[in-house]
Amino acid sequence: MEHELPGKGALLVRDVRLGGERVDILVDDRGMIAAVGRDVGRTARGEADRVIEGGGAVALPGLVNTHTHAAMTLLRGYAEDMPLQEWLSEKVWPIEAHLTGEDVYWGTKLACLEMIRSGTVAFSDMYFFMQDAARAVAEMGLCALLSYGFIDLCSEEKREAECRNTETFVRSILELHNPRIKPAVGPHAIYTVSQEGLRWCAEYAESHGIGIHIHVSETEKEVKDAVAQWGRRPVTILDECGILTPRTVAAHGCWLDRDECTLLAHRGVTVAHNPVSNMKLATGRAMPYHWLKEAGALVSLGTDGCASNNSLDLFTEMKFAALLQKFAWNSPTLLPAEEALAMATSAGSRALGFGNSRIAPGEPADIVLVDPHAVCNTPAHNTTSNIVYSCTGSVVQTTICHGSVLMHNRVVPGEEEILREAARAAETLAERAREDK
Amino acid sequence: MEHELPGKGALLVRDVRLGGERVDILVDDRGMIAAVGRDVGRTARGEADRVIEGGGAVALPGLVNTHTHAAMTLLRGYAEDMPLQEWLSEKVWPIEAHLTGEDVYWGTKLACLEMIRSGTVAFSDMYFFMQDAARAVAEMGLCALLSYGFIDLCSEEKREAECRNTETFVRSILELHNPRIKPAVGPHAIYTVSQEGLRWCAEYAESHGIGIHIHVSETEKEVKDAVAQWGRRPVTILDECGILTPRTVAAHGCWLDRDECTLLAHRGVTVAHNPVSNMKLATGRAMPYHWLKEAGALVSLGTDGCASNNSLDLFTEMKFAALLQKFAWNSPTLLPAEEALAMATSAGSRALGFGNSRIAPGEPADIVLVDPHAVCNTPAHNTTSNIVYSCTGSVVQTTICHGSVLMHNRVVPGEEEILREAARAAETLAERAREDK
Repeated sequence: MEHELPGKGALLVRDVRLGGERVDILVDDRGMIAAVGRDVGRTARGEADRVIEGGGAVALPGLVNTHTHAAMTLLRGYAEDMPLQEWLSEKVWPIEAHLTGEDVYWGTKLACLEMIRSGTVAFSDMYFFMQDAARAVAEMGLCALLSYGFIDLCSEEKREAECRNTETFVRSILELHNPRIKPAVGPHAIYTVSQEGLRWCAEYAESHGIGIHIHVSETEKEVKDAVAQWGRRPVTILDECGILTPRTVAAHGCWLDRDECTLLAHRGVTVAHNPVSNMKLATGRAMPYHWLKEAGALVSLGTDGCASNNSLDLFTEMKFAALLQKFAWNSPTLLPAEEALAMATSAGSRALGFGNSRIAPGEPADIVLVDPHAVCNTPAHNTTSNIVYSCTGSVVQTTICHGSVLMHNRVVPGEEEILREAARAAETLAERAREDK
Repeated sequence: MEHELPGKGALLVRDVRLGGERVDILVDDRGMIAAVGRDVGRTARGEADRVIEGGGAVALPGLVNTHTHAAMTLLRGYAEDMPLQEWLSEKVWPIEAHLTGEDVYWGTKLACLEMIRSGTVAFSDMYFFMQDAARAVAEMGLCALLSYGFIDLCSEEKREAECRNTETFVRSILELHNPRIKPAVGPHAIYTVSQEGLRWCAEYAESHGIGIHIHVSETEKEVKDAVAQWGRRPVTILDECGILTPRTVAAHGCWLDRDECTLLAHRGVTVAHNPVSNMKLATGRAMPYHWLKEAGALVSLGTDGCASNNSLDLFTEMKFAALLQKFAWNSPTLLPAEEALAMATSAGSRALGFGNSRIAPGEPADIVLVDPHAVCNTPAHNTTSNIVYSCTGSVVQTTICHGSVLMHNRVVPGEEEILREAARAAETLAERAREDK
């Protein structure tokens, strides 16, 4: 049930800047890049059903958001500047208890709209009512790795229910046969899932060859509690339960120690950095990027949900990542612009299994076109620096995912309806939460 | 020599959201707000020479950038991710040695363009060739407090020259008789200006009733060196030299101790927080906002120059400020959204002497109109939170400074020429620096 965004068939993107050259890009009717080069436009003009005039725009691989709770767009601004426990127990959880599948559908549509407008083509989502989320993603045309948040709170009864929920969800996604939407298993965290639950998740993911999406060592409390209760740090426990695999994305990792970084690297786990959320919630420590890098771990980027960010713009997130690392670890050379851009593109794309994030023949056509004449791109001493440190997502003109043009000249089809319906869903959700008090 | 931006005469801004109400705003032909209310449009329609249809846009006071080096837009992206000393001595200073007045003119025009596009109506600038900067500001229509960067490096000869330069500059600005452009004295910092120089600056500013713009305690080295050399911390030294006044803006303040915060508050100094620059240059400590707040000091916001930011967008800067404070001082309740917005508006406006930042009769008409239907403003649980945590400067539709419409529907007159000429100036500047190596 995919939206017919500006047409189908082969696509020619003419005259874009790529690695210092002006080239044309030919995309075949399966959404794969067929050719990249100076003369591609001249020779292929007849083959293309659709043509985009790039006008010298900068072509970048589409950005990838490896940790979010998409439908939490409905909670954007709902509760702010509060102590973590009070924020969760008095505001976030009570309103989430009133969420419906229809809310998640519109919240996810709003999230997809925001991502498309800021150049994100793929994301990893963990939330509830994930079949409704899948419906929204399919209509919007992005790529997504979707996981149902598995939380058993160490109750055997709940665990059984969560196993069934996970199975039902994964089956429903596989039955879509949509190459852009893949299921993952979503054990929430070691403090919300029993070790039996974690083992089940690991085995289920292994047997289906699908990904695992989990929160790891976001707060100091999580680490201290694990050591107090089980005598071991979180990453060791997750390893014992089989959670650490090359198909695993571990979000946050603020409180990892050096050995944990090494183990994550050995297991091939991707660690998703979420600098904005970590700063807003005052986690007290930034992900140790330097140790992860030394150990050779893959590090990607995430925005977390809109309740704790409150934006899904990965351009801003790249700036926060590059600056938080410098500040927190007291090194102005840590996480330079090129590495921040790689976190938001190639690392994320590989982590979610959506290609290599290269604009080259044989790769999926996940391409964003950036305005070269924007103020944030002037002057042009260093395009990568401008992208990471100066621009925001508003510099994106065109977003292409697997060959589908999701936005062109900053127009996303259906935008008005999404804004209206998501606003209405958020308002009535907040009303229901108020009335229940 | 002010630009004739969309016309002169009385201005009616119809149907905007202000404090939960839908109102009209009438601006008289001197740029002052004459009336605000529901029926203003109906009764005043005949009086207005120009009408802006707000369409339910959110009206905010114009933002104020209290610390920047505007023409450093030309260095945006020129040198990145380097150790501080190497960055300054091998890249920034060598290229600055080649700056001309014409470069500063175009760099400042580019800065003004960027500020207008992100809702900033006033700023405090410290740099060289400041008469050229003044020319740029006058043409662009913003308000500015301009200071010539006074640096004597403890040489008596240099000090004499800097005193004459300052006198010449201040006189030239006063002779413009432009109410939007005011001079300040700009002693660079305690480590670049002798104490004789600081005293002269303080006395000169006092005798002319003008402001003082200075860097204070940006790095730990500055504090340690002061204690080692003079046995006193920087703020004490500045106080002895007469620099601490209610007309003083002290930029950075990362390494202030508690007593210094108290003294700054007693003297009525405004401290300009520059979170992005501090993070990028890894200052190692965030300005102690909680101590300054406790002491009752006025705290404003600045972007610093584009070499260390690399943007002049105060929306992004508000988010960085609110998040850096939370993270660095380990408190998710520190610097809530309302206080971040006040830093960027009322605190800045009062610090620079450009009004009270209120959209009310008798105040200068410094107003920005924000798109209420942007994704970042959806849903509308909390407009202030959306402005600070979710939106960037691209949400601004219209920027009005002292009644002049500097941008409407995101169009700034003359934008193309500025982008072209600033890009050219930056390129030839970098070439001159390269050839000189």
